[in-house]
Amino acid sequence: MTDTTRLLTIPSETIEVRPIGVIRTGFEHVKDCPMSGRRNATLSRIEVALEYQSALHNIELASHLWVLYWLHKSDRSARVRQARGNQVARGVFASRAPNRPNPIGLSAVRLVEYSHGILTISGLDCIDGTPVVDLKPVVPKEDACPEATIGW
Amino acid sequence: MTDTTRLLTIPSETIEVRPIGVIRTGFEHVKDCPMSGRRNATLSRIEVALEYQSALHNIELASHLWVLYWLHKSDRSARVRQARGNQVARGVFASRAPNRPNPIGLSAVRLVEYSHGILTISGLDCIDGTPVVDLKPVVPKEDACPEATIGW
Repeated sequence: MTDTTRLLTIPSETIEVRPIGVIRTGFEHVKDCPMSGRRNATLSRIEVALEYQSALHNIELASHLWVLYWLHKSDRSARVRQARGNQVARGVFASRAPNRPNPIGLSAVRLVEYSHGILTISGLDCIDGTPVVDLKPVVPKEDACPEATIGW
Repeated sequence: MTDTTRLLTIPSETIEVRPIGVIRTGFEHVKDCPMSGRRNATLSRIEVALEYQSALHNIELASHLWVLYWLHKSDRSARVRQARGNQVARGVFASRAPNRPNPIGLSAVRLVEYSHGILTISGLDCIDGTPVVDLKPVVPKEDACPEATIGW
């Protein structure tokens, strides 16, 4: 039984997120992008806007970063990915596909160099000009899930 | 030298993110929350709004999920965390602190049970009522960074 009273308590207001920078990959179109950033050895840049550059202080102490970005070419109406090959159909929350209600991309990248608001990184697969919304250090004791499994 | 021409190319439009659900932890205030979700063995719930529940199809095939949530009590003007103990000062992008320009929380959680739009999970440390903005499966071959180090 669905408890509709409970569902009414879910926040409905829109959240305003502001780009803090932009990703420069050199991939002009989605079709140019590699399937997985982790298999993309070429370097990319993240250019952070001047007003947020103080938030990068000592970021070079982290070897790896989570990049949260806004996949601005995505279809936000997507809910289910159809079965393909020997994979079952899955909802987009059971998928890393870019088409999803809030198309926030999440990638772990290696920080190669930091200088004057520009991060040189390896491991991104999105198109040039993709807005960045947050950066966080990868913290192994918080993030590592060696026991994680996926059944597809 | 700062290249101001380049900085002008950073997208400035606001991004509209819509809550897709809500987190039920039972922690009423920030001071009640554990310091780290990974050390919090108690179970929490994520209640997904009816209009997004189809996006959860087959989510139980994943053992672990990334939860992206909106830390609605945060100070978005924060840029630098002062040095404390034997740690150096760090910009908020070199930190997992909730106070940051776009306070998107990122936690890896274990999916314990899924039923009718409600995910039972372990490993969250935020206050009750925190809006959820995205859910993604943890995909070890994309996410694992066994070589990651942090120098603080």
